Amino acid sequence: MANADQLPMGGISSARPAPQPVVHDDGRASFRLEAPDARSVEVVPMGDDNGMGPGPYPMARNGQGDWTLELGSVRPGFHYFLYRVDGSARLDPYGEVYFGWNRLCHGLEVPDPQHDFYWPRAIAHGQVCEHYYNSRLTGRVRRAVVYLPPGYTTGSDRYPVLYLQHGSGESERSWTWQGRAHLILDNLLAEGRCRPMLVVMDNGYAAPPGLADQSEVARGENLFEAVLVDEIIPSMHKHFRAIDDRRSRALAGLSMGAGQALRIGLGRLDLFASVGALSGGGRGFELQSSYDGLFADADRANRELERLWIGCGRQDRGYAGAEAMHIELEHAGVRHDWFACEGAHEWQVWRRCLHALAPRLFVAG
Amino acid sequence: MANADQLPMGGISSARPAPQPVVHDDGRASFRLEAPDARSVEVVPMGDDNGMGPGPYPMARNGQGDWTLELGSVRPGFHYFLYRVDGSARLDPYGEVYFGWNRLCHGLEVPDPQHDFYWPRAIAHGQVCEHYYNSRLTGRVRRAVVYLPPGYTTGSDRYPVLYLQHGSGESERSWTWQGRAHLILDNLLAEGRCRPMLVVMDNGYAAPPGLADQSEVARGENLFEAVLVDEIIPSMHKHFRAIDDRRSRALAGLSMGAGQALRIGLGRLDLFASVGALSGGGRGFELQSSYDGLFADADRANRELERLWIGCGRQDRGYAGAEAMHIELEHAGVRHDWFACEGAHEWQVWRRCLHALAPRLFVAG
Repeated sequence: MANADQLPMGGISSARPAPQPVVHDDGRASFRLEAPDARSVEVVPMGDDNGMGPGPYPMARNGQGDWTLELGSVRPGFHYFLYRVDGSARLDPYGEVYFGWNRLCHGLEVPDPQHDFYWPRAIAHGQVCEHYYNSRLTGRVRRAVVYLPPGYTTGSDRYPVLYLQHGSGESERSWTWQGRAHLILDNLLAEGRCRPMLVVMDNGYAAPPGLADQSEVARGENLFEAVLVDEIIPSMHKHFRAIDDRRSRALAGLSMGAGQALRIGLGRLDLFASVGALSGGGRGFELQSSYDGLFADADRANRELERLWIGCGRQDRGYAGAEAMHIELEHAGVRHDWFACEGAHEWQVWRRCLHALAPRLFVAG
Repeated sequence: MANADQLPMGGISSARPAPQPVVHDDGRASFRLEAPDARSVEVVPMGDDNGMGPGPYPMARNGQGDWTLELGSVRPGFHYFLYRVDGSARLDPYGEVYFGWNRLCHGLEVPDPQHDFYWPRAIAHGQVCEHYYNSRLTGRVRRAVVYLPPGYTTGSDRYPVLYLQHGSGESERSWTWQGRAHLILDNLLAEGRCRPMLVVMDNGYAAPPGLADQSEVARGENLFEAVLVDEIIPSMHKHFRAIDDRRSRALAGLSMGAGQALRIGLGRLDLFASVGALSGGGRGFELQSSYDGLFADADRANRELERLWIGCGRQDRGYAGAEAMHIELEHAGVRHDWFACEGAHEWQVWRRCLHALAPRLFVAG
């Protein structure tokens, strides 16, 4: 387990004042917000299957103008929440924030007694690199977050590349801040359990020049596929020691990113030999017709796909769709990995998915 | 000037909903906050010499439950602010946040008609790298932010290193998020105006194990010098292609970081040949006695210091002290750079300082 002194790596400062809320060893979480003149303050979990429970939870005013709340038995993992003060969403300047739900949110990180694979350890660490590239398609300088495995910055090796996408309303920071992808890779690599690789985490929204609003983009103008294929991948080969070979290139994502990974990846098998879908992409799947009928010919799919990886939490409302896709593929003889674990549509599942997926990439069999 | 489509690089997402507040071409800034049930909402500039003026500025309720404010003639640059709703500090989930004043703050970025050296351009970009290292002294995994010049990630060259420190209440993110150090270096390098270098931006607070609070640390337990000398610098040589030579190592900082740079740098001339003080370190300076009397012997100082760089904004309340230090050094024949520009104790000055300082590092004469 994580050392109690070993704080989670906050996104904005690694040496900051005591974090709020406080999570106790037994899983209770204590919230405190200063709002002496407020009439009502609530903690609002974001989303329907939040590990904090549905909420909202009213906070109680104490003598000093602070409002407090204690929640027992919060599910381990990362849970988005906001404060609601007199009816309006607010953030606490002393809290930690994350980009989710198309805005800044707080996050409650509850350690998991069963899993410590995503906590920092005193081992060799890779770097998390912000790569800026000139995007002609969007008319902007865009940013990709790139995990460099330990040794990259002093060595000369070339590496395979996993392109890893976030979910709806999130950003290129999500896989490291919320998901701790870099710590998961560091820990796997220290245990010799996966191949050193670059992990490229870009923003899955890409607006045409002049448009900045994610919601406008989401309404059908998302240029992400073109940006990925024509700008991000070439930029990775120009600026990093990435192996330029389809067998050394994987595309995976969660939720919205799972849909992107399946649609873009299976449509461009000339570019990607491995595709991963985390908690998404199963809905409406038809073996004969989906993805241009790729899976109607199991032999072809097995020949062209080095790794097809499907994972989902058992309490995710998309679980039935993901499992049905897995069963159809199994019956048809399409080789794939299937990973089911406890959990809903949430980061703890995606952390576990990445921990299971990464060792299966860029290896034979 | 920056293209209107070319949004500032937000810290948390490079493709996010339309930012708040909106800054117009003529320098006016429009603020909007949703708070239908609030009784009073204000915009509170942080600090005494904020470019927004002293404030606080009451916002006006409009028909839809939004509160709005328009400020004219805001000084160009970056200005910290918070919202105050019914007496309590609050952040807007749709705004951008920065770590300053020991908490999360909003920032107002007003383009400067005279300077575009810190805006993204379609040129070669370096990377901004989060380097995680195991800190025995603090008992934690700490994070340094490292700028890699264009070409680092594919090349094999070794580079000189500038260690660059933030101010009081800020963090290792400040020089890139608030200061845009990476864009300043990118732009200087594209113009051939400075030597390619690594810039290491670490957190200037370093608490002993078990202590997490910056304010406790600030009360005299800051281990930063030991962490810098015994952990950060060795880690840079182990994990990056950094030239290990005092003439290829500079230490600079702003405000609190200026004090750290002078005290640590001038005390360890075996490690650093160049030292830079931005808006700080001049108070109480005595030529004969400060810094162990280094400047009492101008010949020795000139022999041992390749570059001593002092800069300050003319409206900074520390300006007189900085200028007095400069004049004393000048009279004593101690070779140094002196840079004064318009501005107070604020990021626009520190951006200009870095833009002036970087070309003077790691070059003869």
